[in-house]
Amino acid sequence: LRAQILATAALQPRHPGRDSPIAGAVLTNGDVDAVAGLLTLRESWPLAIYATPRVLDVLAANSIFNVLSADHVARRPIALGARVDLATKTGEPLGLSVEAFSVPGKVALYLEDAGIEQHLAQRSEDTIGLMISAVGTAKRFFYVPGCAALDDDLARRLRDAPLLFFDGTLWRDDEMIRAGLGVKTGRRMGHLSVSEPAGSIAALAPLGIKRKLFIHINNTNPMLCLDSPERRAVERAGWEVARDGLELSL
Amino acid sequence: LRAQILATAALQPRHPGRDSPIAGAVLTNGDVDAVAGLLTLRESWPLAIYATPRVLDVLAANSIFNVLSADHVARRPIALGARVDLATKTGEPLGLSVEAFSVPGKVALYLEDAGIEQHLAQRSEDTIGLMISAVGTAKRFFYVPGCAALDDDLARRLRDAPLLFFDGTLWRDDEMIRAGLGVKTGRRMGHLSVSEPAGSIAALAPLGIKRKLFIHINNTNPMLCLDSPERRAVERAGWEVARDGLELSL
Repeated sequence: LRAQILATAALQPRHPGRDSPIAGAVLTNGDVDAVAGLLTLRESWPLAIYATPRVLDVLAANSIFNVLSADHVARRPIALGARVDLATKTGEPLGLSVEAFSVPGKVALYLEDAGIEQHLAQRSEDTIGLMISAVGTAKRFFYVPGCAALDDDLARRLRDAPLLFFDGTLWRDDEMIRAGLGVKTGRRMGHLSVSEPAGSIAALAPLGIKRKLFIHINNTNPMLCLDSPERRAVERAGWEVARDGLELSL
Repeated sequence: LRAQILATAALQPRHPGRDSPIAGAVLTNGDVDAVAGLLTLRESWPLAIYATPRVLDVLAANSIFNVLSADHVARRPIALGARVDLATKTGEPLGLSVEAFSVPGKVALYLEDAGIEQHLAQRSEDTIGLMISAVGTAKRFFYVPGCAALDDDLARRLRDAPLLFFDGTLWRDDEMIRAGLGVKTGRRMGHLSVSEPAGSIAALAPLGIKRKLFIHINNTNPMLCLDSPERRAVERAGWEVARDGLELSL
């Protein structure tokens, strides 16, 4: 089982003429950073989009996603807790399965209403994590790009995982405010911060996870800088910071 | 008056920390290639978006554009035929004015309905061209990234222009169909093709335009290839093919 983190530009066509190496996408939430990329995929190219019914409803209610026409794009619901074998638009197996699980989070920013403060760090179909497996093997890894809190259910699920990609948005909860770049805490944005006393490094430490990588990292997070004390602290804690082009094998 | 054609990645911040050299955008239509980029601009950065009331209505009706919050982003209507001095979100003049004019076109792909075939190559606020001027000078150029036909009104407007950027989507009207990459003609997609007998090279030839560049070029258009006979034909006809990084001065 190999995982690649790629900038889209690094994906080369396999054939001359039009081609795309992208067979589909599994959406982990409905926010712009998870769904707007759908608008830049090759038009009229067969794709399979997997998401929870909730996120599929968000797409269906938004006319701009009509560019993903039903002639070319299959939209497939994934139920929480059920393993789904991924397949291309035409049903060809991709050799991967996903199991989705809800994680503490919130509704997409653009769908927030006045009551949002009362609906933070809640579990719903709005924000999910994925267990991704190679079909027919025991090989698996976890992909959790947005997570507002580590609760008992999530801890149980991640225990002894061989590999985890996890939300590394902010170093500390008030980072955007301190930098004068925003008015929201990480908690308000739906993200557990890396370095807080109850943050992701501390909360995930006792779970025996073999390899841990931060992804979804905001450009204010000092651990992005190779020579920062924060980067050294992350590495000393047994984490890695993912980068474009990284390849992993299990 | 300098015009730059830049990949967004080529725009460097002027200050350390967060910055964006983008003060705003003038939208020439509501299609994905004209509006989806708004979703990738710096969040919480002051921007001024100019568009026709019709295209502003399309944005307003679509929840995903709520990420351009009114706190940070001004949405400003431009009336057809009136010169508008562009300004930043906070009203600082940008030294540029635009005058918008409707060009033959169609509604955005994702808003098409069953009656679309009866509404091709029509003028409306859905598709506009721009005359862009340096305030206080006679320097100006025209920007027409999508155009389904050259009618008398548009010909009159473009006559003797010093510089024109024009829709170069397809080389020939049935190019997508011949290549097996789509089922639509250029006409159906709202684009006058480059090489047809009544195409853009032929139609614009008598207008005395000083410098003409094709933009908005589909990746099936053979004139993109530097060594193609089509590229040589374009250049012999007095046109240039625009490229990222091109800089022009008037």
